[in-house]
Amino acid sequence: MFPPRSQLIAVIGSGNATPEQGLHAREVGRSIAEAGFTVICGGLTGVMSAACQGAQEDASSGPAPRTVAILPGNDPDAANPWSDVSIATGMGHARNLVIVLSARAVVAVGGESGTLSEIAHAWQEGRPIAAYLPAGGWSSRVAGECLDGKRSDRIEPIATLDELRVWLTRIAGPTPPPGSAK
Amino acid sequence: MFPPRSQLIAVIGSGNATPEQGLHAREVGRSIAEAGFTVICGGLTGVMSAACQGAQEDASSGPAPRTVAILPGNDPDAANPWSDVSIATGMGHARNLVIVLSARAVVAVGGESGTLSEIAHAWQEGRPIAAYLPAGGWSSRVAGECLDGKRSDRIEPIATLDELRVWLTRIAGPTPPPGSAK
Amino acid sequence: MFPPRSQLIAVIGSGNATPEQGLHAREVGRSIAEAGFTVICGGLTGVMSAACQGAQEDASSGPAPRTVAILPGNDPDAANPWSDVSIATGMGHARNLVIVLSARAVVAVGGESGTLSEIAHAWQEGRPIAAYLPAGGWSSRVAGECLDGKRSDRIEPIATLDELRVWLTRIAGPTPPPGSAK
Amino acid sequence: MFPPRSQLIAVIGSGNATPEQGLHAREVGRSIAEAGFTVICGGLTGVMSAACQGAQEDASSGPAPRTVAILPGNDPDAANPWSDVSIATGMGHARNLVIVLSARAVVAVGGESGTLSEIAHAWQEGRPIAAYLPAGGWSSRVAGECLDGKRSDRIEPIATLDELRVWLTRIAGPTPPPGSAK
Repeated sequence: MFPPRSQLIAVIGSGNATPEQGLHAREVGRSIAEAGFTVICGGLTGVMSAACQGAQEDASSGPAPRTVAILPGNDPDAANPWSDVSIATGMGHARNLVIVLSARAVVAVGGESGTLSEIAHAWQEGRPIAAYLPAGGWSSRVAGECLDGKRSDRIEPIATLDELRVWLTRIAGPTPPPGSAK
Repeated sequence: MFPPRSQLIAVIGSGNATPEQGLHAREVGRSIAEAGFTVICGGLTGVMSAACQGAQEDASSGPAPRTVAILPGNDPDAANPWSDVSIATGMGHARNLVIVLSARAVVAVGGESGTLSEIAHAWQEGRPIAAYLPAGGWSSRVAGECLDGKRSDRIEPIATLDELRVWLTRIAGPTPPPGSAK
Repeated sequence: MFPPRSQLIAVIGSGNATPEQGLHAREVGRSIAEAGFTVICGGLTGVMSAACQGAQEDASSGPAPRTVAILPGNDPDAANPWSDVSIATGMGHARNLVIVLSARAVVAVGGESGTLSEIAHAWQEGRPIAAYLPAGGWSSRVAGECLDGKRSDRIEPIATLDELRVWLTRIAGPTPPPGSAK
Repeated sequence: MFPPRSQLIAVIGSGNATPEQGLHAREVGRSIAEAGFTVICGGLTGVMSAACQGAQEDASSGPAPRTVAILPGNDPDAANPWSDVSIATGMGHARNLVIVLSARAVVAVGGESGTLSEIAHAWQEGRPIAAYLPAGGWSSRVAGECLDGKRSDRIEPIATLDELRVWLTRIAGPTPPPGSAK
């Protein structure tokens, strides 16, 4: 009898988010947790922190852990306080690649150049990508696009939390079966 | 009210462990979980798999997650089945460094050249190191040693599971206080 | 008396370049070498290989080495045959970050999602970026843009090799002084 | 007609070398350059700096570049002044792995815990390793050893510069043939 494994969904976005983007990230994080998934992110401030906070607000028995932080530096204690598990890569922005590789799918919320690098890496590595439109930023700019000819899908434009839930179910399976996912 | 954070203890050792080393790793993993800590390791076979299996055998309400896998490749599904959270670094043996950086302390169980690289990185990065003597290998060979003049401590020789428990308590605090560790 | 140091200019672009993009990359590589700089790139095929080939065609006494390959894999012999120095990172696409960090400036020639990740990382890391317009691709799409508010410059649109030479001189200094650059 | 490629030999050792170890590293670096190889190292102080300085003292027409620095940080200008080519990995001590992967063979000169991690990684990755005995340190301690059962060779003990030249010739081929190595 193997334990269930956390199904990780990445939330990517700027560490310098506007208050409005922070609210969007918080709702996105909560929706991901409510759907039974674990949030993985860069573990710092802004969209990252807000998504983790939202995931912790899920009132269901939910997944454990709810949040995983992948940090650029050497100190695991540098993660935001809503991070359940903190991984210190010591590899600077190369940690952006670790976030997307570890995730089953990626949700982009707003975003600056760092988020754009994560979107591009997620595309390269074959991970499904959703762009949460209400938050603007780079995620909105590339929503609906096919970044190059290597994939036949596109970056999914997501306008509402309901659409996000539908997309998560479609991408990652209906209800994770017992013994294979939390 | 922030959630408690997992306190990670690394278990390092060979992917080609002997059956006897596997049993030692399993007991070490279980003892770590029983003490309230989460096992972090390379996520593959041998000592890594056995330590994860042991952590899952902890009958207490224990930490969640009990095990975190830090993989060398691109596919998070490549982790051993006792891994609760699986991180795909895509960075080959450079993932050895991520394991020790993320850990509060490191327990070496047997080990070949890969384990020796992890012991050396753990020393460089200032993480406390214990060598579990019953398992032999590189961990036994460097037990009791000071690898260089940068630190005043030494690699702690651990002869029994009781000694391991005492060391874990000393290194990582008595009982993790509510609201700061699981 | 210290030796001069190679001044590295990154050429980024797709491994699946069209023949026309390959010709552009070759001319860009040759122009970089003729200006006294060393080409650094991902070391594989397409734009990478063509830029290295072009750098080797510089008929002047030129820089040595003319080309440096930063490979994703473990085998330094995997570099294209026009690479003078081959670095095996073993870190997959995380090597994209090593290319831009090592470069004084970055020239994008066409490009797919991998190139987009390099452009985004170069922006994050503060490296000047030029987009070579005749080659199309992602480099053309972001030409003239400011990726986010962290920098006050923009991605420089470059329409001709003459404009490239002027930009290289402006970015990296007129003639590298003796004893500090080749 | 392809250009010859630099044949890289890694010199590993402490950044805090004693003056005597520095002299040994300088002689080792010069011997490597005189044999037609390029020194690759961590690019900082101590043994790294001394090996680069020695390589520059080779009075022959010699290889170009003579030295390649693989740095832990983000700034290529942080390399010691005898480095011809400077690569900024931004990945901290994970750059130790890049050094050994890029090298055809590794020469350890003295060394502390960081050097021990490089020796262990070189063994894991199948690179031939020599330990220069006059310099003491970790390289002397593991000289003559087989780190684990994955390889049938051992860490070659090298007592003199003459023995080093013989070993380099044996490991990396007699005279690099025209068109394949500088």
